[in-house]
Amino acid sequence: MPSADTAAVRRASPGDADAIARLFHDFQLEFSEPSPGVEALAVRYEVLIRKHEMTVLLVGDGPDGFGQLRFRPWVYTDGLHAYLEELYVVPARRGHGLGRALLETAIETARDEGATHMELGTGEDDVAARSLYEAMGFTNRERGPDGPRMLFYEREL
Amino acid sequence: MPSADTAAVRRASPGDADAIARLFHDFQLEFSEPSPGVEALAVRYEVLIRKHEMTVLLVGDGPDGFGQLRFRPWVYTDGLHAYLEELYVVPARRGHGLGRALLETAIETARDEGATHMELGTGEDDVAARSLYEAMGFTNRERGPDGPRMLFYEREL
Repeated sequence: MPSADTAAVRRASPGDADAIARLFHDFQLEFSEPSPGVEALAVRYEVLIRKHEMTVLLVGDGPDGFGQLRFRPWVYTDGLHAYLEELYVVPARRGHGLGRALLETAIETARDEGATHMELGTGEDDVAARSLYEAMGFTNRERGPDGPRMLFYEREL
Repeated sequence: MPSADTAAVRRASPGDADAIARLFHDFQLEFSEPSPGVEALAVRYEVLIRKHEMTVLLVGDGPDGFGQLRFRPWVYTDGLHAYLEELYVVPARRGHGLGRALLETAIETARDEGATHMELGTGEDDVAARSLYEAMGFTNRERGPDGPRMLFYEREL
């Protein structure tokens, strides 16, 4: 059942690119990850949203958080694969269900787009995010609740 | 330095869809994962390769293995993000460097396509695959070798 905050979630348009870029930049800094800077980010968000390469959801008046979805056709089903690329709520607004509202809307949006599956990556020490994902039906285990964990690997090229 | 097997890796064309579908179907069955069946898979592979939505690499005469790459623009860099969606070698041909040759060619191909980053997911009990990924410069840790693990979550929609 959607939470009371779901109504506050809206789909971003290209004109929201500056606000999203600022949120994403703060997100990166908070987690000590590199950021290309607000200006470069805003240009890229504007293009990706305008070309429908990316779907961004915003919550709150600030806006106070965002979720970012990518869709692709795949071979497992005739439907699309949805990847939740980012999910972020500003520190001052955490603990009010905004992340959950964003995730609920992300799932609804993905279904509306014809996706049959959703994936995401997160860090093992991000306990709050993992609790939310698990409460919302996501699993990190292969072949059932006692199966091996699914791990995420990356490298620069 | 590329291994001796690298020369045997080639890029698939739409006409390879049937062979890839059979490999992928066997892959799914080996790991007790559901498969939509060779016929449905072949149709989807043909379309995705023809539309350049997917890049598939083949190794060996069978063919004996394949790797499957997806590219997308993202906000971190002006370059593309590469996702290694599948990597598989048939059981009878394992231990001969085919997986490594596929991965090396996947990295070269991704660089040629303008990708700046590559990601992939694997199971924690797939020790051979994890050793290969780690030997090839991939990390499962955030913020350095002793950092928290990056986890992969999924759910059906």
